[in-house]
Amino acid sequence: MQRTLGTCYYPEHWPSEIWADDARRMVDAGLTWVRIGEFAWSRIEPQSGKLNWEWLDQAIDVLGQAGLQVVLGTPTATPPKWVLDKHPDMLAVDANGNPRKFGSRRHYCFSNAGYLDECRRIVTLLAERYGQNPFVAAWQTDNEYGCHDTVISYSNAARDAFRHWLRTEFHKPGGNAGDIDALNSAWGNVFWSMEYSDFDDIDLPNLTVTEPNPSHALAFRRFSSDQVVAFNRVQSDILRAHSTAPIAHNYMGRITEFDHYKVGADLDIASWDSYPLGFLEDRVGASPEHQRAYARQGDPDFQAFHHDLYRAVGRDRWWVMEQQPGPVNWAPYNPIPLPGMVRLWTWEAFAHGAEAVCYFRWRQSPFAQEQLHTGMLRPDSVDAPAIVEARQVSAELAAAPDVQPYRAPVALIFDYDADWAWAVQPHGQDLSYFGLIFDTYRALRRAGLSVDILPPDSDTFDDYSMILAPGMMHMSDTQKKALANSSAQVVIGPRSGARDSNMVIPTPMPPALPDLDVTVARVESLRPDMPIPLNGGGAVTGYFEEVEGTATATLQTEAGHAVLMNNDNVYYLAAWLDDPGMDRMVGLICQAAGVRTMSLPEGIRIRDTATERFWFNHSTIPIKTEVGELRPADVVRVSKE
Amino acid sequence: MQRTLGTCYYPEHWPSEIWADDARRMVDAGLTWVRIGEFAWSRIEPQSGKLNWEWLDQAIDVLGQAGLQVVLGTPTATPPKWVLDKHPDMLAVDANGNPRKFGSRRHYCFSNAGYLDECRRIVTLLAERYGQNPFVAAWQTDNEYGCHDTVISYSNAARDAFRHWLRTEFHKPGGNAGDIDALNSAWGNVFWSMEYSDFDDIDLPNLTVTEPNPSHALAFRRFSSDQVVAFNRVQSDILRAHSTAPIAHNYMGRITEFDHYKVGADLDIASWDSYPLGFLEDRVGASPEHQRAYARQGDPDFQAFHHDLYRAVGRDRWWVMEQQPGPVNWAPYNPIPLPGMVRLWTWEAFAHGAEAVCYFRWRQSPFAQEQLHTGMLRPDSVDAPAIVEARQVSAELAAAPDVQPYRAPVALIFDYDADWAWAVQPHGQDLSYFGLIFDTYRALRRAGLSVDILPPDSDTFDDYSMILAPGMMHMSDTQKKALANSSAQVVIGPRSGARDSNMVIPTPMPPALPDLDVTVARVESLRPDMPIPLNGGGAVTGYFEEVEGTATATLQTEAGHAVLMNNDNVYYLAAWLDDPGMDRMVGLICQAAGVRTMSLPEGIRIRDTATERFWFNHSTIPIKTEVGELRPADVVRVSKE
Amino acid sequence: MQRTLGTCYYPEHWPSEIWADDARRMVDAGLTWVRIGEFAWSRIEPQSGKLNWEWLDQAIDVLGQAGLQVVLGTPTATPPKWVLDKHPDMLAVDANGNPRKFGSRRHYCFSNAGYLDECRRIVTLLAERYGQNPFVAAWQTDNEYGCHDTVISYSNAARDAFRHWLRTEFHKPGGNAGDIDALNSAWGNVFWSMEYSDFDDIDLPNLTVTEPNPSHALAFRRFSSDQVVAFNRVQSDILRAHSTAPIAHNYMGRITEFDHYKVGADLDIASWDSYPLGFLEDRVGASPEHQRAYARQGDPDFQAFHHDLYRAVGRDRWWVMEQQPGPVNWAPYNPIPLPGMVRLWTWEAFAHGAEAVCYFRWRQSPFAQEQLHTGMLRPDSVDAPAIVEARQVSAELAAAPDVQPYRAPVALIFDYDADWAWAVQPHGQDLSYFGLIFDTYRALRRAGLSVDILPPDSDTFDDYSMILAPGMMHMSDTQKKALANSSAQVVIGPRSGARDSNMVIPTPMPPALPDLDVTVARVESLRPDMPIPLNGGGAVTGYFEEVEGTATATLQTEAGHAVLMNNDNVYYLAAWLDDPGMDRMVGLICQAAGVRTMSLPEGIRIRDTATERFWFNHSTIPIKTEVGELRPADVVRVSKE
Repeated sequence: MQRTLGTCYYPEHWPSEIWADDARRMVDAGLTWVRIGEFAWSRIEPQSGKLNWEWLDQAIDVLGQAGLQVVLGTPTATPPKWVLDKHPDMLAVDANGNPRKFGSRRHYCFSNAGYLDECRRIVTLLAERYGQNPFVAAWQTDNEYGCHDTVISYSNAARDAFRHWLRTEFHKPGGNAGDIDALNSAWGNVFWSMEYSDFDDIDLPNLTVTEPNPSHALAFRRFSSDQVVAFNRVQSDILRAHSTAPIAHNYMGRITEFDHYKVGADLDIASWDSYPLGFLEDRVGASPEHQRAYARQGDPDFQAFHHDLYRAVGRDRWWVMEQQPGPVNWAPYNPIPLPGMVRLWTWEAFAHGAEAVCYFRWRQSPFAQEQLHTGMLRPDSVDAPAIVEARQVSAELAAAPDVQPYRAPVALIFDYDADWAWAVQPHGQDLSYFGLIFDTYRALRRAGLSVDILPPDSDTFDDYSMILAPGMMHMSDTQKKALANSSAQVVIGPRSGARDSNMVIPTPMPPALPDLDVTVARVESLRPDMPIPLNGGGAVTGYFEEVEGTATATLQTEAGHAVLMNNDNVYYLAAWLDDPGMDRMVGLICQAAGVRTMSLPEGIRIRDTATERFWFNHSTIPIKTEVGELRPADVVRVSKE
Repeated sequence: MQRTLGTCYYPEHWPSEIWADDARRMVDAGLTWVRIGEFAWSRIEPQSGKLNWEWLDQAIDVLGQAGLQVVLGTPTATPPKWVLDKHPDMLAVDANGNPRKFGSRRHYCFSNAGYLDECRRIVTLLAERYGQNPFVAAWQTDNEYGCHDTVISYSNAARDAFRHWLRTEFHKPGGNAGDIDALNSAWGNVFWSMEYSDFDDIDLPNLTVTEPNPSHALAFRRFSSDQVVAFNRVQSDILRAHSTAPIAHNYMGRITEFDHYKVGADLDIASWDSYPLGFLEDRVGASPEHQRAYARQGDPDFQAFHHDLYRAVGRDRWWVMEQQPGPVNWAPYNPIPLPGMVRLWTWEAFAHGAEAVCYFRWRQSPFAQEQLHTGMLRPDSVDAPAIVEARQVSAELAAAPDVQPYRAPVALIFDYDADWAWAVQPHGQDLSYFGLIFDTYRALRRAGLSVDILPPDSDTFDDYSMILAPGMMHMSDTQKKALANSSAQVVIGPRSGARDSNMVIPTPMPPALPDLDVTVARVESLRPDMPIPLNGGGAVTGYFEEVEGTATATLQTEAGHAVLMNNDNVYYLAAWLDDPGMDRMVGLICQAAGVRTMSLPEGIRIRDTATERFWFNHSTIPIKTEVGELRPADVVRVSKE
Repeated sequence: MQRTLGTCYYPEHWPSEIWADDARRMVDAGLTWVRIGEFAWSRIEPQSGKLNWEWLDQAIDVLGQAGLQVVLGTPTATPPKWVLDKHPDMLAVDANGNPRKFGSRRHYCFSNAGYLDECRRIVTLLAERYGQNPFVAAWQTDNEYGCHDTVISYSNAARDAFRHWLRTEFHKPGGNAGDIDALNSAWGNVFWSMEYSDFDDIDLPNLTVTEPNPSHALAFRRFSSDQVVAFNRVQSDILRAHSTAPIAHNYMGRITEFDHYKVGADLDIASWDSYPLGFLEDRVGASPEHQRAYARQGDPDFQAFHHDLYRAVGRDRWWVMEQQPGPVNWAPYNPIPLPGMVRLWTWEAFAHGAEAVCYFRWRQSPFAQEQLHTGMLRPDSVDAPAIVEARQVSAELAAAPDVQPYRAPVALIFDYDADWAWAVQPHGQDLSYFGLIFDTYRALRRAGLSVDILPPDSDTFDDYSMILAPGMMHMSDTQKKALANSSAQVVIGPRSGARDSNMVIPTPMPPALPDLDVTVARVESLRPDMPIPLNGGGAVTGYFEEVEGTATATLQTEAGHAVLMNNDNVYYLAAWLDDPGMDRMVGLICQAAGVRTMSLPEGIRIRDTATERFWFNHSTIPIKTEVGELRPADVVRVSKE
């Protein structure tokens, strides 16, 4: 496979006179792809039904003639004002019951049928016009589903659709009608007299006096995710009917409110928008010290994690659709990246298997919300630093070997449903599934391991030496059996299998794993300032389970409580561990799995491909490694043969 | 008096087949009481008017036949969905004007007449059916009035009722009509042109541009409390008409939004729900260091304070209706208690005079909101640690002497009205009446003193050596006179008597105590980081009054400002003191009162009964005391004779 | 000019029997002015159209006969309840869409036409009755425009008025109709398909999904300011038609939501309300250490800054209309001032050129919202400490020389429009224009400099040695040219000239100054914990610009990035500097300007008049200076001759 570069371009923002020169400069910089169109609805259709295609025809033609391949976005993330006038109830409603207004983007509720009709119409028109266009080489549906907290809506449309969804989930056996008794029983609504006599009794779980039933809240999260999947499928079905070009969506980092695997199943390519500095300030959740240490580089594992995640979501076909090119506008603080970081981020994506990396955006916009978001060019069209680093990558790519498929030794299961379950019931303040997974992932990376991320319904695990499935609140018996039957070292827990499919504690008590005698008797959450030391180093932090059973206690607290129990290759981990504790756990499992580990210096990370090992220095200082001293932002590629 | 144990049970949550076995296990564990029914409305009356008593008849019979005494709760804290459908305006409204939705509990406004009718109806039906049942040995009205911020409602029903309440408060002399001029004058509404021409002009004091008139705000707090009293009285009147069994309500810890004395006056027994670890994380307001030190034990004074408070509310008859049995589900962090703490908490309640301690709950629920709230049994019916400690207490109780009435040497006045006045006008950030009272109480406890809490209208003080009345914003002349005339050492202030009955500064200036020449000329609130050192140790913190007068300055600041002034046995305290300052003040007063004090080690607390002195170790380490070394969670009983 | 004292009095709060005695005590204390009436609407007009003037006639007469001059306030900040009943839509609406209720003050929306009619009516009546009254020597319009967040309203009235305002801003050339295409183009609404087809499409910029277009948000801020100007002008026009007495408004400290210069252009005198301790706790934004150090004195520069600002707003005629006399009621903490501070604050105002200082208030109110706001008298009419210090000032004034006009060597431009632009787009968390200006002002004051503040449209700068214009986001070409052409040392930046008049980045790139080759290529915001050290001391903090060009780099970072660039007397500052960095910058510029600087000890400040130099000790300790040791709260006047 060939690795390619690209950029995001808004011809509608610039006079058509400069399009050709822009296209030439893109090609000269070594770019292959140009994404356009995803916010241009008001220019394509300035009034309801009055279509204006000429400018877009011309833009695609100019770009294509210059030698670029166009990724064409559907414009449904930014419906014009007239769409809202036609469908005044299309706005999402926040948890306080306030509709969210026009004047930015993503101002729609996924459950609104009227808006869905408008989307169906405009996407069909777009697909009909450009489905066979030779320059349109890929599609993008909408833009960053879920960004700005837009998956969950408390609108009347969402309420009605939720009731319908529940009727389907709890249908009477052999019939279509909903079985409200089944729902009451599955959710335990007898508690606090919350029983319903009809599905139309059920409201959305906001503004309740104290927390709603977690079964209710989780069902609403699942429904909300399914609405995104259905919304996207309408578009992908239309595009596929008119075009053979692959279809992508550009997911946003650290958005877990909908199931990306399920959306991804309807697409050909997963892509994501990678803003390392913005994420560090806004989404990683790191300590102030860590934020300061990586302020100009980004967290050394956050992008890697998403690369691995979207490789899974895309079933090995994935891109970075938007790559940060310099300071952005939207984080609490927006520093300039260290020189070389744009190149490092690009190579890191390729090392993890990306097909393409596109820089957002070509030219910095002088107007509107993102006017302080840098681009490859300055607003006055002068080269910005990003284009210089992109040119360097382009030259390096020309000399790089082709890419072969690669399977990592370690698999980590990531389950969106578990993230919602933890969000509904974190038990301890600030505990989150994403946090647990990312802490685990970081430990694997510190040990020098390359990681594959797997969806929760994976059931064949050939070739993996180790599989980790922490925090997966609900596990089916099939999943448990498949994991236990694999030949890998398998680590399950904490909290894995803790609930049935309706968020109820099952009997027999969790985790109820085949061939492993461990029972979680009680659970506790802990203040961050009261770690429980492990015997031999490391500590439990935040969350701990009191476990019983005859399995071997491989790790224990100083006080003698079991922390990691196993029977042969199947382990149950009964705690959230701090970093040293995670390192010990990973070390033990790797040893059992016969996987060699390293102890990478702070800021150094590696990633293997089939033919090469990549070394990256994410720190601000030179660091000595087995492949020599790496300066800040250095990327070193070592051939494996 | 005999001390007894009990538990809270939800037969509606479990198959009737296991009720008998549950009852047998309760009796075997030494339990006397079983509370049931308080959330079961949807099972008693699944549809409006369709009553289903059979299951409850059977449950009471099974439990009673096994030898248990039933506490039967009225189910009015959890009206089913159909009640809301009949009375869509019954929901409480939050300060932003949003109605609080169905889907948890306590979703009603105390002022809604339609809902009050429903309550009257269901309680009458319950009382008629079980008023003479031989196994129903006590009643509980509703559940935890005020929990989840439910006393204050900004509904239209509350607004209309508030106007009616004000008309009654400010009635024309000799007539029934309200006197709006009297209200304008009493509140000082001339200020900022806030004068009303009719009671219907008056709105609720939310969403004002800046703070509302404190007289207005305080009146609304008083009204809101009276609505709870009236709501409860409807139920107690009905129950009393049908049954001779005593009536209780289970108050929740650290809820001060309504006057518990006034609710208690209509009941026979005060009971409260004691969750030491949940409270420490969520309600005590302690420093992080203190929270860490007591994370698995709870604050060493918080439960004791409530025990003493509810002994006053219940006029010496009081219970713990719900005792924490292990980790709970609802605090920011939910650790497992230290082994032995469930026993310690139980004995502590008995040491303070409780008649009964009931553990919440019998079996952990696998479903709904409290699925992570432990019980005496696990969800799979296996014994949880709490039942083991309960059995030990049961065995110890059998060997313990009978209980005699006991009067403490020290009285501390607790006045709900003062708490509202401080909440309306804290003057300094985070200053609260509860905080001041609790700081004072802790100082008394550090000195080894047992304390009686008194309601604000107490006027006979025989037998007390010391009486403290800090922070009591409004004091009637009768109260002042009664205190000044007592033979005890009396400490009044800070802020005591600072306002008239309508929250206005009186003339002559406060405190205007008989026979004590002290005047508060100015008051100030202080940043927490600027304590004012006392001459000789300790400091003023948070709040300070500039006082004048000829009384003796017994405590002064280093700069020479009077802090504690007295004339003979009557003291005015002009400051909020830090812990060392409080200790000095307590020491001085005790010396004058001839009361012997101790200086208890951190974590050690004592409590006297008529016949015994109890020693408790609340800390995590063994501590040497005059009765020997106490290990963590130790309870030592020393006979007094 | 003669300096005078006064107070704020509420005859309607007290029995008329004591007015004469109050007046006598005012005169005896040396007061000249008494402000009355500004909250008395409900007493002047208790019902719609039912006027009650007698009490006010009498009050003015009693005060005037005693020798006092009356400042009469229009009562429009506190419309009575009946006004709201007539105009239920007059309430301002908060950002969540909730109307703000009756029950305090300032409960009106500036855009409500019905309320504006009521104001026109009552002010006309007041002007007609007292316009020729010999004792009414000055007027005050309304009270503290903007206090309690009252400039911005999201009401329907505001929305409609905003659309009208925009039509006027973007009118078609040669016609009256709005040009929506011009607006779309000026704002860049093509971005995210935000284009409008009519002005009626435009909503207010609240509740959007993510941030609104900054051009949209800034326009709404400008509109909101203009509504205040128009509201005030209605009153000043009426008063001026009936009276020759000067007209003032009492601005509140640290309120920047409307353009005080524009309001001031319609008035004769600027006055402001100075609450040094309240401001320190609530509005200065200082560190906890600084707040502790100055808790009883107030920030040593905050009042001085406002004095200088309102001297500009009043075109040299300005007062302190309300001077803090002791602890107030409204800050998070409300300490008692150090003895002598009321005198110091008074003299400081005079040193900066105030004509009059009036203490708020005469007698502490025992009732309503401000009952803990001290006065010159206690609620029981006993002298409070403030009156004693006022008497001392009065005696000192009698012996003081007359005041001559004075021009400072340094000018600092303060631009309300820039403050809104920064608020709309701070780029980094907590960055504000006010903060930047105040940091600059403090550095000038540490160097012992007296400062004149200039409005943004100043274009003649004779006599100034230095002019600073940091952070002025939009600068017209005329302004740039006037500054560059002045003979002073001129410092522009950071962020000066960064946007065009519609909040769009201009081309050529900023700052585009004549005769200075500097271009801002990229900007970054920085975590507070990552300062960038300057070569030679001091650091960049918070905000930094990457600059290019051939101008001389007079200050650089340790890494060699230019920070301060100049060509002869014109400097561009590319960073927000910390205090040591600011001191270095000020030192460099002063040296170039030939202005002598000092390095004042912490807490010591000086201010020059034409004839004297004032020294003030704001600290809590004695400090040695060139004019001798100053004790805390000392004021030393040194004759210049």
